[in-house]
Parts: sequence; C-alpha cells; structure tokens
Amino acid sequence: MANSFGELFRITTWGESHGGGVGVVVDGCPPRLALTAADIQPDLDRRRPGQSKIVTPRKETDAAQILSGTFDGYTLGTPISIWVKNEDARSEAYSEMATKFRPSHADFTYFAKYGIRAWPGGGRTSARETIGRVAAGAIAKKILRERFGVEVLAYVKQVQRIAADVDRERVKLSEVESNIVRCPDAAAADKMVRAIEKARRAGDSLGGIVEGVARGVPPGWGEPVFDRLEADLAKAMLSLPASKGFDVGSGFDSILMSGTQHNDLFRMKGGKVRTLTNRSGGIQGGISNGELIYFRVAFKPVATVMHEQATVSVEFKNTKLKGRGRHDPCVLPRAVPMVEAMTALVLVDHALRHQAQCGLA
Amino acid sequence: MANSFGELFRITTWGESHGGGVGVVVDGCPPRLALTAADIQPDLDRRRPGQSKIVTPRKETDAAQILSGTFDGYTLGTPISIWVKNEDARSEAYSEMATKFRPSHADFTYFAKYGIRAWPGGGRTSARETIGRVAAGAIAKKILRERFGVEVLAYVKQVQRIAADVDRERVKLSEVESNIVRCPDAAAADKMVRAIEKARRAGDSLGGIVEGVARGVPPGWGEPVFDRLEADLAKAMLSLPASKGFDVGSGFDSILMSGTQHNDLFRMKGGKVRTLTNRSGGIQGGISNGELIYFRVAFKPVATVMHEQATVSVEFKNTKLKGRGRHDPCVLPRAVPMVEAMTALVLVDHALRHQAQCGLA
Amino acid sequence: MANSFGELFRITTWGESHGGGVGVVVDGCPPRLALTAADIQPDLDRRRPGQSKIVTPRKETDAAQILSGTFDGYTLGTPISIWVKNEDARSEAYSEMATKFRPSHADFTYFAKYGIRAWPGGGRTSARETIGRVAAGAIAKKILRERFGVEVLAYVKQVQRIAADVDRERVKLSEVESNIVRCPDAAAADKMVRAIEKARRAGDSLGGIVEGVARGVPPGWGEPVFDRLEADLAKAMLSLPASKGFDVGSGFDSILMSGTQHNDLFRMKGGKVRTLTNRSGGIQGGISNGELIYFRVAFKPVATVMHEQATVSVEFKNTKLKGRGRHDPCVLPRAVPMVEAMTALVLVDHALRHQAQCGLA
Amino acid sequence: MANSFGELFRITTWGESHGGGVGVVVDGCPPRLALTAADIQPDLDRRRPGQSKIVTPRKETDAAQILSGTFDGYTLGTPISIWVKNEDARSEAYSEMATKFRPSHADFTYFAKYGIRAWPGGGRTSARETIGRVAAGAIAKKILRERFGVEVLAYVKQVQRIAADVDRERVKLSEVESNIVRCPDAAAADKMVRAIEKARRAGDSLGGIVEGVARGVPPGWGEPVFDRLEADLAKAMLSLPASKGFDVGSGFDSILMSGTQHNDLFRMKGGKVRTLTNRSGGIQGGISNGELIYFRVAFKPVATVMHEQATVSVEFKNTKLKGRGRHDPCVLPRAVPMVEAMTALVLVDHALRHQAQCGLA
Repeated sequence: MANSFGELFRITTWGESHGGGVGVVVDGCPPRLALTAADIQPDLDRRRPGQSKIVTPRKETDAAQILSGTFDGYTLGTPISIWVKNEDARSEAYSEMATKFRPSHADFTYFAKYGIRAWPGGGRTSARETIGRVAAGAIAKKILRERFGVEVLAYVKQVQRIAADVDRERVKLSEVESNIVRCPDAAAADKMVRAIEKARRAGDSLGGIVEGVARGVPPGWGEPVFDRLEADLAKAMLSLPASKGFDVGSGFDSILMSGTQHNDLFRMKGGKVRTLTNRSGGIQGGISNGELIYFRVAFKPVATVMHEQATVSVEFKNTKLKGRGRHDPCVLPRAVPMVEAMTALVLVDHALRHQAQCGLA
Repeated sequence: MANSFGELFRITTWGESHGGGVGVVVDGCPPRLALTAADIQPDLDRRRPGQSKIVTPRKETDAAQILSGTFDGYTLGTPISIWVKNEDARSEAYSEMATKFRPSHADFTYFAKYGIRAWPGGGRTSARETIGRVAAGAIAKKILRERFGVEVLAYVKQVQRIAADVDRERVKLSEVESNIVRCPDAAAADKMVRAIEKARRAGDSLGGIVEGVARGVPPGWGEPVFDRLEADLAKAMLSLPASKGFDVGSGFDSILMSGTQHNDLFRMKGGKVRTLTNRSGGIQGGISNGELIYFRVAFKPVATVMHEQATVSVEFKNTKLKGRGRHDPCVLPRAVPMVEAMTALVLVDHALRHQAQCGLA
Repeated sequence: MANSFGELFRITTWGESHGGGVGVVVDGCPPRLALTAADIQPDLDRRRPGQSKIVTPRKETDAAQILSGTFDGYTLGTPISIWVKNEDARSEAYSEMATKFRPSHADFTYFAKYGIRAWPGGGRTSARETIGRVAAGAIAKKILRERFGVEVLAYVKQVQRIAADVDRERVKLSEVESNIVRCPDAAAADKMVRAIEKARRAGDSLGGIVEGVARGVPPGWGEPVFDRLEADLAKAMLSLPASKGFDVGSGFDSILMSGTQHNDLFRMKGGKVRTLTNRSGGIQGGISNGELIYFRVAFKPVATVMHEQATVSVEFKNTKLKGRGRHDPCVLPRAVPMVEAMTALVLVDHALRHQAQCGLA
Repeated sequence: MANSFGELFRITTWGESHGGGVGVVVDGCPPRLALTAADIQPDLDRRRPGQSKIVTPRKETDAAQILSGTFDGYTLGTPISIWVKNEDARSEAYSEMATKFRPSHADFTYFAKYGIRAWPGGGRTSARETIGRVAAGAIAKKILRERFGVEVLAYVKQVQRIAADVDRERVKLSEVESNIVRCPDAAAADKMVRAIEKARRAGDSLGGIVEGVARGVPPGWGEPVFDRLEADLAKAMLSLPASKGFDVGSGFDSILMSGTQHNDLFRMKGGKVRTLTNRSGGIQGGISNGELIYFRVAFKPVATVMHEQATVSVEFKNTKLKGRGRHDPCVLPRAVPMVEAMTALVLVDHALRHQAQCGLA
C-alpha cells in the first residue's frame, strides 16, 4: 500500500518518468460531484516543469484524461482513473544515469531495495509521480470547496534567507499566482526570482519553505490518537520529493516561548468558541478547533546540479557524474500545488472519516 | 483505525486517564521472540511522570501485564495484549475541568468532535495514552536489536535556547540516562535542569527538541512513494502529544545551503556504498541508504501551567481557569522514550514490509 | 491485521484459552451510545459453553469488563476495550495435547506457521477467541437497532438431516431462545436435541447449518466491487471456527433454476421499490436492496471426539490420541450468537462506510 | 477501499463498461519478475465473452497494455498499471436500460446507493470490471508458480444437475481448456454444452458450480483469526459477479457426517505430516496444512434473459423490460479464469504476509 494514500478518500498513484505514463486511481469520491478534466488540468499546469524562464523549458503538456468514474460530467462514486501520457522521452539525456548513482537522488536506494531500477529520468523517483497526487488533489479541493466550504492554499514563504511577509488569513490564490515564484509578497518574490536565476546560471540549486493554509475547517476534524490531523499532514508533506521538515502553528519556534506565552486562550466570539491567538495552528489534540490551519514545509536544494560530482557506479566503483539535461534550480514554485494537493487529500479524508463516525451521534 | 499504527507490526492503543486502565494490542509480532513484562517495564518507568525532582511526584507504578500472545516466555505470533491499570485516580484535582475547557489542551476539540468527553485527567487526551505506545515500542526495539542489529535511541537535544552537543554516531543509552533531563551532554543537561526548575517554580512550562537516531538500518527499508521512511517517522512524531514539528537530516537548515553544498557524495568504503556527508539523514527517496538515520522533534511548552488563564466553559461562557494538581513543566525527558518507541515501531514495520515484498527478489 | 475485522467499525481480538484472558478493542464506535457491560453480557452468556445438558458443564462465567471507551455509561468515540478473564484453567485435562497434534484441529498448522504453539486448551485456536467477537457484536447490534432500525438474528436451521421450518421474516429472538438448541421450530428442535444427545453418548459430534437474517437494512449498504455485502458476510462467516460453507439467498440451490425462474422482479409497493421474490437474499451487485438479508453457514461436526484416533506427535512420529475433557458434540447453538455478532459487525461497518461516502451526496 | 483487494499484494480495479476502459493497479508485486503483456493476455482471452458458439459473438479484443511498473521486461517493485480500452460501445443496444432497472441486476441498488448510475452496459456493475482482476491474477499466478511452486486451477464442476467427475489432484489446464465449457470431464462437458445451447435457444440462462484447486501450497499460509485462508477465499469468490455460495473441503456436505467420520487423521508420509483424507480442503484453523486446497463456488443463472419481465422504471413506475443484445446464457466458462485469478490473489497475498511475519522466526 506504499503507493496509496488516505483511508476513505484513497488515492493510488502509479507510473514512471518513462513508459506508458503516470496516473492515479481515486477511490471513495462522493457521487454526483461535477467533474471533468477541466477541473484537474489547471493544477497539473501549475505543477508542470518548464513553466517559466527560471527553469529549462519542457514540452510536455501533461494533459489529464479521466478514464473512469464519471458519467455525463458527474462522479459515480466508483473509482476515478486519471491518466497522463509520457511524451517527452529524451532518454538519451540521461544515459549516464544508467551506470551511475546520482548523489542525493534515490537511484542507489531504489537499487538497494529492489535490485533493479528504471534509470531513465529517475523512473518512479521522478517528480512526475506527483502528477497523480496533484490530479487527485484537484478533486479533493473541489469537494472541500463545494461540500464543506473549506479553502486550501499554499505559497512560497521563503527561499534560502529571503522570507516573505504574508497575511495567512487573507492571502488569495490570485496573489500567489501573480508571479512565477508563487510568493504573494511581491517584493520578496522579486528577490527570490533573482536568487533562483543566479543559482540557475551557477548550475546550482536552492531550497526554501512552502507554507500551507486551510480556511473554514470546522471544529472536529482529525482522528486521535495516531491519525491526528497534524500527523497526517506531516506524513503527507514528508512524502513529497525533496521535503526535509514540517511544522505546524508555532512549530519549531514554539520552543522559545514559555507555556503561559504560548497557550491560546479561548474566548467566545460571534457565538463561537475561538482562540485569541493561534499558535496551535488550528489543531489541538489532533483535532481541528475551527481556527485557520497553517503549517510550513522545508524543501532542500534539489539534488540535480550542473556540476561534476563524486559518486559510485552501479558496479560499485568510485566515479564522477556531471548533471545534464533539464535544470530546475528551485522546486518551490512547483511544490506549491503539490502541498495544496496533499493538504486537500488529508482534509477530505478526515472530513469523510468524521462523517462516518460522528455523523450518527 | 485512528487508534492503530503500523501496517504489519500494528499496534492499537486504548484507555483513558481514568477508568480501567490503558493498554495496547500488538498484532503481527514475529513468533519465538523471548518476551516478558521485564522487557517492557524499563521503558514504561522512563515514561512515567514524577520520576525526578523536576516534576510533581506521582505514585503510579504503571506495571505492565502481558495478558496474551506469549507462552513460556516466548511470543506466539498471536496478538500481544498489554494492560496497565489506572491507580492514581485523584479525580478531585481536576473537578474544575468538568466545566471548563483548558486552554491549548484538547478538551474543547474532543467535545466539538464527539459531543461528549471524559474530563477527568483529560480522558483519552492524557499522556497516559502513550503508555501503550511505549510498551509496544519496547517490543519493537527488541526485535530491531535482536533480529536486525538495529539500535534506536533518543535524547533531549535542546531546551529553549540551551542546545546540547551530541555525537549522534556514538552516543549511548547510559549517557542519556545519566541525568534526569535525558541529555547526554552533561554541561547542557545542568543548564537544562536549572531552566526547568526555574520554570517549575514560576508555575510555567518550557519546550525544546528531542533528537532521535537509528543505527544499523540496512539500505532498502522504506516504501515509496507515500510511506517513505521519513514520512512515516514524521507522522509518528507528530502523533505525540505536544509535538509541533519534525525534520530529518539537514531539515529546516537545508534551506541555507546550495545543492552543491548539500548533496551527499557517494564513495565506496569497506566494500559498501557510503556517503561522505549525511545531510540526507540516512534516507534518500524515502528509502534507507545505510547511513545513520537522525531527525528532530519539536515539543512546545506544555499547556498545563499553574496560572489563571482566560478560557471558555462547557456552557460557552467566558471564564477563567487556574492550573492545579500535578505540574510537569517540561515534557522532554519523558518524551525521549516515546520518540524511541515510535521510531522503533516505524522501523520494525518497514523491516517486515521490506521482507514481505523484497524477501522474494 | 489478521486479528482485526472491519474498516471503520474495527475490532481487534486477542487472547488464548489459557493466560490472562481474552478480549477485544473496538475502534470507531460512534460516540454517545448508552453502553455498559449489561449490554454485552447476555450474548456472552449465549456463547458460553456448558449452558445445557447437551454439553459438558463448564464453570466459567465469562464476565465482561469494559476497561475504556465509556464515561458515565456512554461511549466516548474512543476505543472500547473489553476484557474477559480466563478462570477455568484445568490445563491437566489437555496435557497430552502438549505432545500430539489433534486431528482436524489447528494444532499442526499453527506449529507449522509459527514454530511454536500454546497447546493448553488450543491456545489462540480455542473457541474462546470468539468471546471478543461476540462482545463487539453486541455493541454492533445495539448500534444497528438504535441508530438504524436494523435487527440481526440467527438460529439453527439444520442438524445433520433434521431441517427446521422457519419463517425468516417473522421469527423472533424469544423463539430462538426457547430451547437449548436455538432452533425456533419446536418439533425440529426436539429431534435435534435427541440427535445431539445421542452423539454425546457416542462420544461423537455432528454438524449443521445456522441461518442468519437481517431485517430493516435500507437499500444502499455495501461497497462494490470487492467489499460487496455478501463477500464481507462470507468472509465473516468463514472466519468462524468449524465453518465450512456460506451461501446467500438462493445460494447453492440457485443452480437448479433457470434465469427466468430465478430473477427477482421489481414491483412498486407502499411507495418503495420491492421485489416479488427474494432469491437475491436482499443483496444485488453487492449492495442491499431493502429486502430481507438471509444466508446460511455450514458448520462441520467439531473435531473433538471422545475416541482414540491416529495422529502424529510433535516429534513427527505416528501415534494415537484419545479425546478427553469437555465434550461439546454440536457447536451450532453456541455458533448462533457468533453468527449474529459477525453479521452485525459487517453491517454496522458498511453503514458507516455508506455514511462516509454517500452521506454527502 | 471498496475497489481494492489484498493487504500486501494489493490490486485496485477501475472502469465502467463504457468510457475510457477498465484497468487495474497492482501494488506490492515483488521486483525482478519477468513480465510482459504476453503473460496477461491469455487469461484475458479466456475471460472474454463471445469466445464460442454458446454465446453471442463479441468483437472486443481486450488487449492489455502495461503502462507502468516494468522495465526491460521485468517488474520494478513499483505499481503495475494495466489498461484495457473499451472498444465495443454499442450503447444503443442498451438504451432502454437508461430508464428501467433490470431485474436481479445491480441497476437499482447502485442508483439507491449513489443517486446516479452509468446505465450503458451496466457501468461499473458490468462483468468487464473483472478484466482488472483477471489481469492481476495472471501476475499472481506467475509469482506463485515461479517463486513458490504453487499451481492454481479452476474448472466447471457442475451445470445445473450435470456434475463432472474430476480428479482434483491430477487435472490439468489442458484438460480444462479442451472444450468450450471448461469442464475437464469430456462426457459431462458434452451434456453441459447441450444444456447451455438449449438455454440459449430458449433465451434463458443457467447456473452451476466452479471448483477451484491450489496445489503445492506449503503448510503455514493463512492468518488467524479473521483473515483465515478460507475466509479470504470466501470473500474473494463472493465478490465475483453472479456468485451465490462458497464452500471449502467437505463444505455443506460435511454436515451429513459425524466427527469421527469427518476428521482427517494425521500420518507421516515421505517425512512430511500428511492427512489420510482431506475433508479439511487443505486448511485447518485458517492455515494451510500442505494438502490440496479445494473449494466450490456456486454461480446463479445470470440475470440477463431474452424475455420480457416485470420491473420498475427510474421514475418508480411499474413497467416491463425485455432483454436485448448480447446473450451469455452461462457465465461458468468465463468464471473459470476469474476464480483462478481471485484464488491466486488470495494466495500470493498470504504468501507475502507469511513471509513478513514468519520469515524472521
């Protein structure tokens, strides 16, 4: 079940960077949701490499086909199978990969695990795998929006030391999409673009932080004790390529406060139980409390750089390998739709789980 | 399945802080492992509150009974049921909790979710729930040690701004256990103890970081793409009470490096594929690469403080609540065995999963 | 997960015939259901051996304790842990079992699988394991009755060639419980009792059929394509000790009809879509259609007989073994509450699953 | 997870009779297994309707494409996605199905459950769904054969009252495939063909029994207590379209024997623990005992008949409906590869589960 995610809204992704394509099967989608490929394509386009001048152009269109699960434009409640063909083979660009393990990539570990690997384009370890997630996430976002009034959004919060100033409660998708780096703080975005361009010219890469928010989640979602909402979000984010860390609400910074400083005091407001601050990040004891959910995901500088690096061959000899081909010096802008997708998948799954157990009560 | 963890080595915890006790059922344990309560009790003792002068004493012995799954001191392969009685009722200390939601606790969210809550001692939200995890984790650690030669260890790495200097590759359990704060750096430990004592006198609490390591994990454990080793570790850690963040290897700090700086270069060493640095934290593409696995978990300052705080009553009126009863100003020393337990549970589960799929290959 | 059953209303049973007891953890129970041990004990009493003159008396009281998951008599939504102590050790009666495999029991296969076995009383293979199922089933039956208006009932339909005449639509629990063989057809029951007594005197055993019914299941429960309602019922029934077969609706007899004879024609009746006949057994395409659900379970003559039989020792030598101790010549009356329990567990799980996915639609 | 089957060798099927096709994702397949479409196609061809004169011809080729999970003809350990296009649309043949519920089909129950249905060709309820199972089953059979020396086989045992005489231990695939009804008893096969042709001429349908066998299963496969081998087989078989019953070993006939007659006595033979008879059907206490596994599956006469029948419209009015289009009077020959597939899926899953838990012991 390594390739499945979710308990009730369960997705299974498949596909390698080369071969017949990549895809996803979504099981457990509620019936009678209006759904066509047009609901999915925009997020796939946001995920696609080569969208802007800061990366190597890439021709793939990543056009999603819905093969099953809908009828006359509505979901049936049966599995939704989505397929995106592989078009941009270019396996020649990667031929040296056949005989050498790329440093800090998963070439070696896949080989160690399976005794075989699909070297062209990284096989299953390619970020193309996330196409299935993003497609399924688009459905999840639609369910959250239409059935629960919940909005999920992510944006680039930091590139190296360049941090953006973002109002989590009010930031809009249009602001995120207003620049190629997907940072809603225009001034920071400019600096980020320059830093990324510089890294690109240097054949190097850089990392940063994507922040995710969910607005409108009602109190009560989340399953104690293992499937806490933040635990499932953490897993979701750490399952993304190149991610190295996750924190929620006050996160790692919480350790600098005392308990009296950190506690979110409850107050009635508009007939609702609210908190005066939101260091909890909208989740207490693993269950949503009705406040804004927010969290951060750290992405390392991606491993593909255009420099020669020491490494080991598949025959276990020391050797060297120089990065070639497509160069995407900063994964963050493309990670934004991935973070949104995984967030939405976690939330819709918990919405259904809550409905299952407590809809009766 | 909210109360279960693991796919093949699957634990299910149960119990509230008041009532018949707390416990765990471990399903999927390999047969013929020597196992008695004596294998479990030491970790339960490490987890138990009131172990040292830095917390309020507590009388509970938390004695584990193995009710099933063993015969003549060996595991049968059938479910292992472990039970720890609740002895220290003291429900009077908590009576105000019946009518008010404690700030930054889960009282409100449980009520919002279930429409009912067991208020004495926090019910299911009490840290007593972790008894089952720690008991199961002790079994997992034993399996890892005896069947796979893997050692799991955790320690307090930081309390507020006091950071310890620890050699991850060499630190020993005896060093961790050499002081009440479970920090193997004696000088830092002294400062931490003083900080915790100060917080205790102030009726306040403080947070920090626990670091976990696993040594001897062979290359190949971990399941792409969703059940990556770091993803499951992240979930495991974020399911612990009071945890707010997780990072692995270079983690959040990775964003300050460039790709060329960050990449772990492969080199042959002693006939094995090794890396010159270990910013990956022993995991690449979700699969162990044979290097040391290490990660950090941030714990917030716990919510229970001895001050009066604004809050809301169960009748949805603004009110105030003052912490009373037991005061544990820093959860970190007790979190150490919890982090070890969850790490071991993740690893043994992945060991069995790897054996299932690739044992054939 | 071998010891767990159900997706959303998930039970995990544990325990051997000897040791600390047997029990079950029920996860996913809706909150705010009135529940005390008194709701569970009656079915445990029905399941208990030695209830009547047709079996060897046995002293165990099988008193259920609810250790967690309730507060002030109501379910919390947290795991319900139920424990029944083992009291009637008598391991001397079984000492020969330590060295020989009982024919048609699971002694050999457990040993072959695990390399170890708890021989006293059959260990995990003992029918005592079903205590956990029956306890959990009592909760499931209560949920079905109170929240969904669904009634589950089972009864002995046939012992060897003695078949009962039962009106599935109208048979009542009181009729089932009116005699020691749990057959609501009094005349057949008398014959059955005589047959069982005769078998008992002969130190032999006999099998038969238990029929299960569920009334009031609304159209729409059941999950195509693998978790069809009849598929989950089949699994549930074949997981019971000594069961050898299952059929639903017209079952094996359907093969004697042609399609035109067999089809259940739809007709409107009282504003509802009904069928004129019910050969489908209330399930079509894996989903309930609103008609009575009924099915049959075949139980073999139990393996424990009071005769000397050829067998093999644990040292793999041919030998002989004579049954001793308690003799229960016909498992059917005790299987009745087991069949009810498993039926209720399947139905409540599917009710929650339906609510999860389609409650939204 | 309704559309997934298996714990470790997990398949997820998708697709409706009309739309982009049908398919399956196989997760958990061991790596380095030689695999191309040629391994899958023969079973798909056996499953395909219209193979012989006893049914309406159908043009679909049902050609399988492997879209992922292999490289250079070997499995990678990553998900194997298999796709079969829908080619034979002919939706006009089914237009009346848009407004009426076919008797004893799943049209009504799907509508009751989901509030929407894909009426052309029955949508998800079409037997085309089994393509995914059969494709995955072909892989499972190959693993069993090559890695475990286990052979799975099924055949038509009975059509209405015409019962075949088959030597379970020795029957070969070539004998099964030697006639269009897939019954290895030539004399019985002739009678069956005549009965089916007669039913076809009458526009009617008939049912029967498929028997499945597995040879070479070692002692120890199967997971007590819920995931017993026979329980999982029962579920697998009852998940097949038109199946109504399952029994294993002596099955329903066991009830006519006494315990002394029924017990399988153990004897050493060739250094192995064997049984003198095999009424257990190769499974004791849910675990294989090394003997031949065999079981029966009852299939009802299929619901599609060429006669006018009373039914109800989607507007809930009484009406009539006459079967049109393709007529397959007996599903049994095509059910044979389905039974094999499901058997193989159960067995390989249990093989991996056994290896996971007990490979260590």
